[in-house]
Parts: sequence; C-alpha cells; structure tokens
Amino acid sequence: MTSATARQIVLASRPAGGRAALSDFRLEEVPMPVPGEGQVLLRIDYLSLDPYMRGRMNDARSYAKPTQIGEAMPGESVATVIESNDATLPPGAQVLVSAGWVSHAVADARDLSPLSADGIATRAYLGVLGMPGFTAYAGMAAIGKPKSGETVVVGAASGPVGSLVGQLGKIAGARVVGIAGGAKKCSYVVDELGFDAAIDHRTPDFADQLANACPKGIDVYFENIGGAVWKAVLPLLNQYGRVPVCGLMAQTSGNNADADDGLASTMRAILTRSLTVRGYINYGFLPEYRDAFLRDVGGFLRAGQVKHLEDVTVGLENAPQAFIDMIDGRNFGKVLVRVSDEAA
Amino acid sequence: MTSATARQIVLASRPAGGRAALSDFRLEEVPMPVPGEGQVLLRIDYLSLDPYMRGRMNDARSYAKPTQIGEAMPGESVATVIESNDATLPPGAQVLVSAGWVSHAVADARDLSPLSADGIATRAYLGVLGMPGFTAYAGMAAIGKPKSGETVVVGAASGPVGSLVGQLGKIAGARVVGIAGGAKKCSYVVDELGFDAAIDHRTPDFADQLANACPKGIDVYFENIGGAVWKAVLPLLNQYGRVPVCGLMAQTSGNNADADDGLASTMRAILTRSLTVRGYINYGFLPEYRDAFLRDVGGFLRAGQVKHLEDVTVGLENAPQAFIDMIDGRNFGKVLVRVSDEAA
Repeated sequence: MTSATARQIVLASRPAGGRAALSDFRLEEVPMPVPGEGQVLLRIDYLSLDPYMRGRMNDARSYAKPTQIGEAMPGESVATVIESNDATLPPGAQVLVSAGWVSHAVADARDLSPLSADGIATRAYLGVLGMPGFTAYAGMAAIGKPKSGETVVVGAASGPVGSLVGQLGKIAGARVVGIAGGAKKCSYVVDELGFDAAIDHRTPDFADQLANACPKGIDVYFENIGGAVWKAVLPLLNQYGRVPVCGLMAQTSGNNADADDGLASTMRAILTRSLTVRGYINYGFLPEYRDAFLRDVGGFLRAGQVKHLEDVTVGLENAPQAFIDMIDGRNFGKVLVRVSDEAA
Repeated sequence: MTSATARQIVLASRPAGGRAALSDFRLEEVPMPVPGEGQVLLRIDYLSLDPYMRGRMNDARSYAKPTQIGEAMPGESVATVIESNDATLPPGAQVLVSAGWVSHAVADARDLSPLSADGIATRAYLGVLGMPGFTAYAGMAAIGKPKSGETVVVGAASGPVGSLVGQLGKIAGARVVGIAGGAKKCSYVVDELGFDAAIDHRTPDFADQLANACPKGIDVYFENIGGAVWKAVLPLLNQYGRVPVCGLMAQTSGNNADADDGLASTMRAILTRSLTVRGYINYGFLPEYRDAFLRDVGGFLRAGQVKHLEDVTVGLENAPQAFIDMIDGRNFGKVLVRVSDEAA
C-alpha cells in the first residue's frame, strides 16, 4: 500500500567557491503524487548519480538549463509501476525514467517502455547499458576510433564511462592506459579490467609516469578530466590524435578553476599534429549509435568480455553525500542510490 | 644563354624575439647548377611566399624539419625548363617545383609534370589553384562543411587562403564574415569578393563588431590567426560549430606569444557546445580532395565565380622584405616574387 507522502531532494543553494556541500541540498516530504488518466505511479528503485549533475547546480550556460533553487535535482532512475491507469504498463513493470532525486513519480505511460532485463539486472540500464555506457561507446565509435596497435588513454578509468572506454579500446586491440585516483582503483583497472597500465593522478611525478606508460605516444585521449591531466597528455599526443571531449571534471568541480593557461600550446599542438578535439553530448549520437551500442555492449556483457562495477548507497537521504563523494573521486564504480527498500 | 652563377637566399640566423628581420636572410651567388642525365635546368619564374615559412625559421617541432642556418629558404615556384636532358620536358615547358628561394634549380624530370594553363596564368598554381587554394578547399570540404544559412568567419580574409574560404562559403549559401587588417582589405572582401561583412581586427571594439556581424552566431570558424581573434570568436560559436585549424599567424609570428590564457574556457566551450576543433596539413588531404579541388575551383575561376588577387614583388633580392611585409599583414593578395625578368 502507498504511503501518504513522497520524498525528494531539492537544490537548496548553488555551491559557493566551486565545491558542492551537503547544505546545498535539502530533503523534503511532499504529498504522494496521484496518477491521472493514462498515467502510472512509479516507485523509484535505483537512482543514478552522474557527474553532469554538478554542472546543473551552477547558474551557467551548459548543455541544459540549470536546476532552479528549490527544484528537485535531476536524474535518471529504474522504477517499478505501483499504480497504473494504463493497460500497457501493469503494476510490477520496470521502466527507465528521468524523474530526478525523488522517491515516487507520476508519468505518462506512453512516454515509458518496459525494461527487458534478458539476464542482466535492470539497474545496468543506468550504467554500462545506460547513458554512461552509451557515452563511452559513442565517443569511441564516432571520434576516438581506436585501431589495433594504437595507444588509448582514459581518465576516471574505474568509473562507469572510463572503464568501458578502456575495455572497448582493449577489444579494438589497442594498448590502454587508465588514469585513476589511488592505488585501489589503479589495481582494479589493470587486474580486473585488463588495462595495460594505470597511473595515479595524485602522484607527484604523474606526467613522467604517463609518458613512461605510453612509449609510442597517445593516439586516443578520452578527455573527462581536463586541467593538469590535459597538460600531461598534450605533449604525448601523436600525429592525427583524436580527443573525444566528454567531461572536464577537474574544471567543473571547481577544484582547478584558476588553471587557465596552456591555450597557445594546445592550439599549436592541434595545428602541427593534425589533432581532432571534439566535444559531444551523448544523446546527440543516439539516433546513429543506439542500436549498435545495445547489441555490442549487451553482447560483450553477456559474454563476460566487459565487466562493470556498481557503488550502491542505500537511502535517498544519503544521495547528497554519495554525490559529493563521487565528485571528489571517492566512489568506486557506477554510483547508484537504492531508493526503495523493496528494490530487487 | 645561361649565366655562370645562380642566386639564392639562405637563412642567416633564427629570428630573435619572435620577429623575423632582414638580417635573418642572406643573398648568395652560387655556381649555376648543371643538369645530369634525366634532369632539367629550371629558371624560376615566380616564387610563392607563404606563412608556413615563418615556422621553418624556428628551431621547433612542427610539421616539418626546421630550415638549417646557411640553407636556402624553402618554397614552391613556377619555373621554365631552360636546359633539358629528358625528352618529355623540352626547353620552354613550365612546371611546378619545390626548389626554395633560388633563381635556378636542377631537378629530375620524372619528378615534374608540365603545367597546363588552360586559360589561366600558370602562376595561379601557386595561389588559388595551388597549395593556398587547396588548403582552403580541403579545410572547408573535410572539416568546415558550411551549409546554407549558416555563418562562416575567416581570418586573413583578403589573403589567398581566406579569400577562397569565404568565397566557398558564399557558394555554399552561408553568411560570410571576413576578418582583415585595415579598411582597404575590408572593403575589398566585401566589395570585390562578395563577403557579407568584414571586420578590421585592429579596431579597439573588434569583439563587439564581430558579434554584431554574426547575429546568428558562428557555425564555421576557419582558424588561421589564433590569439585575441580566437577569444573573440569563442563565445559566438554555435552548437556543433566546426573549427578547421589551418594556421596560427598571431602565435607563430611571435607577436602574441605570451597570451596563453583561455584554455579552460576553450575546453569548456568544446564540451558544452559539441565543437569540433581539428588541425590539418593540406597535403594530408591531397589523395582525397585533389581532383575535386582542381575540378571545382578551376571551374569557379573560369566561370568568374571565384576571384583572386596577387601581390607581386619583382626580384629575388626583395623576397625577404616581401616576406616580412606579409607576416606583418602589409601584403594585399597572394604574395609572389617575380624571380626572372623573362617570366610571363
């Protein structure tokens, strides 16, 4: 039976000085929403926390409109239908929904598709088979284009995007070097994911270690960090190097906001080494690559050729701390919040 | 009859403090070269002066090896065969040759192809139908891809590359805004070449004028300047904007070498607006685009749809001053040196 109230986490204030704090979020109780005609009431099972959300907390031009103060934080979830006014989606059906940081939501049934797990836990559709996985796949398919014998470097290598980028590089026959924070993550990407090397970006001689790990230079750098890592990568990029720009965690988190030098050397490298530096938004590639992604990565997963790791926090009330930990690099794997006690 | 000596201009010293000076060049008399078996002796008619030569004067990693001190400056020419030991290239045949800043040269006949003018002066093969023209064509065909209704911005707009970039943009149906130095060049690109607007990059409110000239933003920015112009362009670039990076005159000439800030905002724009910033070397595109270029631009020239302007200096001894003038933006059109008194 459905309780009288739902819960949500709203943006209480914009992060001051660049870093998000617990006080920038507020947990609220709200009346349980009621589904109208053709609608369903959803119980959120797992909420996905993703780096792009940090950008939405700022009042700045970006992909999408900033989240407003007092508005629920945005986000994607796997949810279960618990009340239905539509025959195509009976209670018990599982769906993917973009409802934000909430415990329950009402949605039009025609906007939802039932998830078929097909031997994979449905929460994979928030990670390796969802937008993070698609982001990795599309960036590599459309821009990175790794070839056998080339060298691929990827940051945040143990995260949901980076871990798939590297595994796709290995499947393509490339040498893959991961960049991660801390010995545990570095061991994981080498020992569990099969990367050829991993460099801890916190070590003082990071740039030297990266150069040593890339004796034939870098052909594909999957950029999701920016800042100091970019400056260590730049001199190693080979002629015709490709740089999918997927994120700039070091910049958007505000940890490195004042490091603005290096434009002239960057442009000079782009010119003299015929580099391609190309930003993209994952959903821009959906029409072209969605089917191939589900087929290829779904197949790799079932065949055990691709591994993925989930970092699950229990309880919506703990989402802000889990989010801050992720921004600070303390997560280990795809960050999910188990919102419902009843989630599978 | 052939004189006993030839002339050449060598690199005497590397430019100090970034700016090339007359004292960095030296005119030398050398023995007239003698063609061997299968070779021809060439009289250089017109020598092309091009911005890339400034980079070769530096001792720095670039596309190609730096010119050595005491070595002839590199360069392409249109030349006439004056002695021949090969039946396929009789005296009087005209060829394109990469012989450097010299009055005469010996070359293997099998490396040369006779030029067919077909109603166009052969020196056009140094400009609009040569590497500068090809650089414009390939950058627009492979990277810029202007569409009808879009806005194209190009720097050095009255020069041999920029003028063709803009005219190709107009032929594609785009709005075209040129950036040039001084009122004379600005008038030329609007009145003679048919650009929609031209902005003088020397005016103090350059960035404001550029924004006003691009009310719908910028879709294609053909980058051949760098520095302050890039910073004015960056905020105007639209979603999915394309930036062929063809040159960085403001950086390589040393006039702007210390302006290195702006990397973070550049990377952020690439990310959030899905920009493609891609460097290229003209000859890298030759296999793919050479035939289409000669067909298309040759056709546009004969039909009067594309105009070009030549800035001819008389005498090899005046090449260094003409080169410095070009680097400083005092040329007006494609810079050629008429090396031989007998050139057509």
